[in-house]
Amino acid sequence: MIKIAIDAMGGDYAPQAIVEGVELARDASHNDVEYILFGDQRKIEPLVKSMQNLRIVHAPEVIAMDDEPVRAVKKKKQASLVLAARAVQAGEADLLLSAGNTGALMVAGLLIIGRMKGIERPGLVVTLPVIQNDQGFTMIDAGANADAKVENVIQYARLGKIYSQQVRNQANPRIGLINNGTEADKGDVAHRKMYEALSALGEAGELNFIGNVEARDLLTNVTDVAVTDGFTGNAALKGIEGSALAVVNMIKASIKQGGLREKLGGLLLKPALKRIAKKMDYTRYGGSVLLGLKAPVIKTHGNSDAKTILYALQNAKEVATSDLVAGIATQFHAKQQQD
Amino acid sequence: MIKIAIDAMGGDYAPQAIVEGVELARDASHNDVEYILFGDQRKIEPLVKSMQNLRIVHAPEVIAMDDEPVRAVKKKKQASLVLAARAVQAGEADLLLSAGNTGALMVAGLLIIGRMKGIERPGLVVTLPVIQNDQGFTMIDAGANADAKVENVIQYARLGKIYSQQVRNQANPRIGLINNGTEADKGDVAHRKMYEALSALGEAGELNFIGNVEARDLLTNVTDVAVTDGFTGNAALKGIEGSALAVVNMIKASIKQGGLREKLGGLLLKPALKRIAKKMDYTRYGGSVLLGLKAPVIKTHGNSDAKTILYALQNAKEVATSDLVAGIATQFHAKQQQD
Repeated sequence: MIKIAIDAMGGDYAPQAIVEGVELARDASHNDVEYILFGDQRKIEPLVKSMQNLRIVHAPEVIAMDDEPVRAVKKKKQASLVLAARAVQAGEADLLLSAGNTGALMVAGLLIIGRMKGIERPGLVVTLPVIQNDQGFTMIDAGANADAKVENVIQYARLGKIYSQQVRNQANPRIGLINNGTEADKGDVAHRKMYEALSALGEAGELNFIGNVEARDLLTNVTDVAVTDGFTGNAALKGIEGSALAVVNMIKASIKQGGLREKLGGLLLKPALKRIAKKMDYTRYGGSVLLGLKAPVIKTHGNSDAKTILYALQNAKEVATSDLVAGIATQFHAKQQQD
Repeated sequence: MIKIAIDAMGGDYAPQAIVEGVELARDASHNDVEYILFGDQRKIEPLVKSMQNLRIVHAPEVIAMDDEPVRAVKKKKQASLVLAARAVQAGEADLLLSAGNTGALMVAGLLIIGRMKGIERPGLVVTLPVIQNDQGFTMIDAGANADAKVENVIQYARLGKIYSQQVRNQANPRIGLINNGTEADKGDVAHRKMYEALSALGEAGELNFIGNVEARDLLTNVTDVAVTDGFTGNAALKGIEGSALAVVNMIKASIKQGGLREKLGGLLLKPALKRIAKKMDYTRYGGSVLLGLKAPVIKTHGNSDAKTILYALQNAKEVATSDLVAGIATQFHAKQQQD
């Protein structure tokens, strides 16, 4: 049985939204997952409707959203996040999930769960929509590592390939490098080097490298994996999110502020607009997965509601059953022996 | 009278779209602008309806979209772009505009028109929409300089301020740094240094520095000027553009492929959707202005149609009448004397 360690106290609506989301996921699953909630027992217990496949581990401390990450993880030894990470490290759970302080989650991942051998800097994977299908595409690194070196980004390409294959069932995922143009000579010095190294891996048959891709085209299915340094990835991701939200909000506002005509039009188009809003809603894509640790760590938005937690837990189950860590270990170990 | 030098052969629909756009701009202006079209006289002449305030300078060569920029500008001495840049350099025109090869335009700007004293690397200014008003905000550098140093970005902040004041009539523009979080300690090493330097200028009263801004919030009026290195700016800009376009296309597709309900709803919401599409249409915002040269250079998209050229020429007129170059010279000269 898969075991998921959940920081029940992390996030703007914790523990209420977390407990609700866990129960939604539990009720939708087939008794094949155990959910372990870490947090204040007195606060969590009254919220729980049924204890089936659910366990509470009391944690008297909480890491706040604005706590300094390293300090918080080191000092608050009884925090829900820290105890959840410890359980994963001890093999009592397969995976860690939190909607709390992102920095603290990363620090807990690095210091408590630990990096895998051969991985220098873990990378954050997110899945985003594309217009053409419901599969979407994967971006790595979406912002774990703002000061990425060329070697880190090459590792992200290889991690992204394994994630695509094992979690998203894509046999031969296309790997594209986010750059400021599609031509081979585009980019700053670092991105030109990344392009060269990825091209070499492409020629060696290790990656299906399709070259540079532009942030403008990501939503139109140009690549399965968009590889990037964490700083650029973060800017592209936030540009995409903010812009989609802005357009959706503008449409809502013009219906709301409009006359009878707009209101009737809005009513008729409601199902279509809802479908689109649903497609562009990144909370449905299951949170961000920090890859390169001895066990996967999943981060969902601080403002996660119960549904967001549900989606993240469904994704967590996929990740856990896909045997991702073993896949990464095998491939990175083989690579190291070759080197 | 303002004189604008136009590369009539640059862009996917040149010279047809360029000539049409120029005539639209001419017909909408008050006889206070002379438009000088550089290009193949035999091709341009038959397209022109009236020669009022319009002049053609024959240029027998053309720089193609895929020509290598430096080589093209140096070898094709009779190219439309090169002759147009020469005219600006010689003082025969106030400003250069092209929809052609971006790299070649930048090289022509740097090599023929020349950098202003004190400006190390020119930066590209674009204006983008915000939901709340019709003013929009300004991003600099949107991609002229992929390998920006900290000092370059500080200059972009100062250039952006002057542009906002003189062209966009904002008395005390808010200056924000695009970063991967709003907190002061966010970013990679370079962006933390930029933050420090901009904070110092803020404290000295030289800039109205409001701190870090995220790409996610740019369309919601968080800043008047978004300062960034060209690589990050390019990724954020293209993420924003691509995402807005994707949402608009999804709505169009669901109306087109929908049943009677969607079609009627689409019909009723058409004016509202058109307003939104118009607002998000970056071609309306007048192209990108390369700042830091002895005369402004304006680039419009390669796929510019006549209307895009019209908007770019209206913006060009604003830029030319604002005496931007003199403003920059005064402020950067004063700064140098202080240093």
